[in-house]
Amino acid sequence: MLKINENYLKLPGGYLFPEIARRQAAFEKTNPPKAIIKMGIGDVTQPLPAAVTEAMHKAVDEMEDAKTFRGYCPEQGYDFLREAIARGDYQKRGVDIRPDEIFVSDGAKSDCANIGDIFALDNKVAVCDPVYPVYVDTNAMAGRAGDFGSDGHWSSIIYMPCTKENGFMPELPKEIPDIIYLCFPNNPTGAVAPRAHLKLWVDYAIKHGSIILFDSAYEAYISESDIPHSIYEIEGAQECAIEFRSFSKTAGFTGTRCAYTVVPKALERGGTSLNGMWNRRQSTKFNGVPYIIQRGAEACYTPDGQSQIKKLISYYMNNAMVIREALGGVGLTVYGGVNAPYIWVSTPGGMGSWEFFDKLLEDACVVTTPGAGFGPSGEGYIRMTAFGDAEATKEAMKRIAEII
Amino acid sequence: MLKINENYLKLPGGYLFPEIARRQAAFEKTNPPKAIIKMGIGDVTQPLPAAVTEAMHKAVDEMEDAKTFRGYCPEQGYDFLREAIARGDYQKRGVDIRPDEIFVSDGAKSDCANIGDIFALDNKVAVCDPVYPVYVDTNAMAGRAGDFGSDGHWSSIIYMPCTKENGFMPELPKEIPDIIYLCFPNNPTGAVAPRAHLKLWVDYAIKHGSIILFDSAYEAYISESDIPHSIYEIEGAQECAIEFRSFSKTAGFTGTRCAYTVVPKALERGGTSLNGMWNRRQSTKFNGVPYIIQRGAEACYTPDGQSQIKKLISYYMNNAMVIREALGGVGLTVYGGVNAPYIWVSTPGGMGSWEFFDKLLEDACVVTTPGAGFGPSGEGYIRMTAFGDAEATKEAMKRIAEII
Repeated sequence: MLKINENYLKLPGGYLFPEIARRQAAFEKTNPPKAIIKMGIGDVTQPLPAAVTEAMHKAVDEMEDAKTFRGYCPEQGYDFLREAIARGDYQKRGVDIRPDEIFVSDGAKSDCANIGDIFALDNKVAVCDPVYPVYVDTNAMAGRAGDFGSDGHWSSIIYMPCTKENGFMPELPKEIPDIIYLCFPNNPTGAVAPRAHLKLWVDYAIKHGSIILFDSAYEAYISESDIPHSIYEIEGAQECAIEFRSFSKTAGFTGTRCAYTVVPKALERGGTSLNGMWNRRQSTKFNGVPYIIQRGAEACYTPDGQSQIKKLISYYMNNAMVIREALGGVGLTVYGGVNAPYIWVSTPGGMGSWEFFDKLLEDACVVTTPGAGFGPSGEGYIRMTAFGDAEATKEAMKRIAEII
Repeated sequence: MLKINENYLKLPGGYLFPEIARRQAAFEKTNPPKAIIKMGIGDVTQPLPAAVTEAMHKAVDEMEDAKTFRGYCPEQGYDFLREAIARGDYQKRGVDIRPDEIFVSDGAKSDCANIGDIFALDNKVAVCDPVYPVYVDTNAMAGRAGDFGSDGHWSSIIYMPCTKENGFMPELPKEIPDIIYLCFPNNPTGAVAPRAHLKLWVDYAIKHGSIILFDSAYEAYISESDIPHSIYEIEGAQECAIEFRSFSKTAGFTGTRCAYTVVPKALERGGTSLNGMWNRRQSTKFNGVPYIIQRGAEACYTPDGQSQIKKLISYYMNNAMVIREALGGVGLTVYGGVNAPYIWVSTPGGMGSWEFFDKLLEDACVVTTPGAGFGPSGEGYIRMTAFGDAEATKEAMKRIAEII
């Protein structure tokens, strides 16, 4: 008799964003039509850069001619893309990451979720709180999280509260974790880690033999010059960290799907290369990213691609400024939105975060993300994204100002 | 201290196809240049159908306009594609599979590999021998396979030998498995399962509460009218089977990446819906297939798409006939190639399969796949694919005829 993976039964409710979509749909069904403005899920709204679509058109043409047609791609990604990434995202910043340390994939979400395959099930996991739910849920599915308690905590996970008191920066935990998830610029709080903070973590991980899983999907939004874009800007990080990056937020690829993960050759545990293990994992369980999409991603590194991406990011960061100013103007306390596309908003008058979510949905027709969805320390906050259309963002701020 | 997943250390050598590529590259380095003809990895060579590239061009155009731009897609696939699949691949054949039972993905390899996530680690797995290595390796990685023995068998896996004596059809195992992998049309032997054979398996799985993981990635190559294309053509299969399908071999998508998995709503174990579990797995660990690619896949179901696909398949099946006739003509015994794009060739004179592989590579510059790479019962065979260019296939047959 087949036995299911019973860890799935421990998962509370649905995944956060489907639950938001459900409430939104329920609201739409029972209310007169009024344009809902979505500032919930961190999804981009502006079209792909012209350099990208041009490259993809060309690749589609190649695929319709037997002479230039491409079959299976390397599971790790084409050399042309791995080389462009190594040069454009690392070597340009003086970080020595090589193409064969880069694994191209269909998403940072997939990679953050699948990376657990190469680790034993009895490793101890630490996460920030609030946190991107994928880190926690995938460990719960694998059996590393223990049981879900009524306080919103999993019994075997080490939580590192990120609160306004500590400036949303996690403190080194007393109980030593084997696996440490860090995300900077942070989703959901928008906080960024200065060099000294990252160095604390690298030193800690090296001392204890832990691994840092560093999610820098939002690095392109860093505007201040002294903030590291990659954990590998910190000495020693190649011996203790895996880094996740994505084209989703950088170049509008949420519906186009391309990302990559860096596993340095210097990274090993018990004499086994993690680069070799991840290579084996990807070769066996993945078949690479579409050729057409990889050509699109490659175009991000051309001079035209770079300047178009810069414009995209300015567009969204202008929204972030609009949101910060509008909400601050009506007396709300806001964080983030300077080096990150997320604004972390304190709910007014001690409201619960789902309660404030419902109020904004019902009274202003604006969809946000309740902070509690990211973990217990997210209670009392909502997350707003800067990825909207500029006019819609202004309209949303106007509506919110009217009801606060 | 981080602990790695030690199951990876038990995996013998590399994954099969990288090893073939390595031998091929080593041969090319030390020999005068002569055109190598690749009949090893089952990779298509003919361009994408025009209906597909047309749809993808249109989708790229949509992605460069804010009005038609698409961000995150549903993790399960767009309704337009799920509906086209339900109609075109199931309802048209009288099989009642609904869109919400279909999960669009980036590959049947990924899905066959990832499906294990929703099963407990102590399930007993049965595979055919020879077998597509992904089924075995992914279970070994998860810890379900036990230890790899010197006889080429994993200690905890139930092997079902498929030999010329049983017509390459697996027999119901005496030890009852919880999870049964079946692949028809078969990779690597090219065998197909008649209705009566599939009914045996469905009855067996229902009796024992087992799950059949049915890989029908090659169903489009079935030429005989009485062979089922889907396991769901057998009564009761919706209560005991998950089916994997792919556009890779049907429409030349090996480098374009689109596939799907069917998990019927009727499929549950211990009161838990496997459709719900897979939905949760995909929502949490996957972010969907690129919009552009899904539009390409949808175009496969248009009248133009269908007629172009038919031509593609005829082209490859003509190669299969050429291979069968040529090898049969020089006295080799061949199987498959009638309802499948694979020809399973008995090695001459009791040669080992890697030995015959090396001989064909060195003397004829033809790359094949050694049967032993698919499991112990593959020893004494090589697999040839019909996915080559027609002229190259003829040339390969000429060269082989000269050296046999």
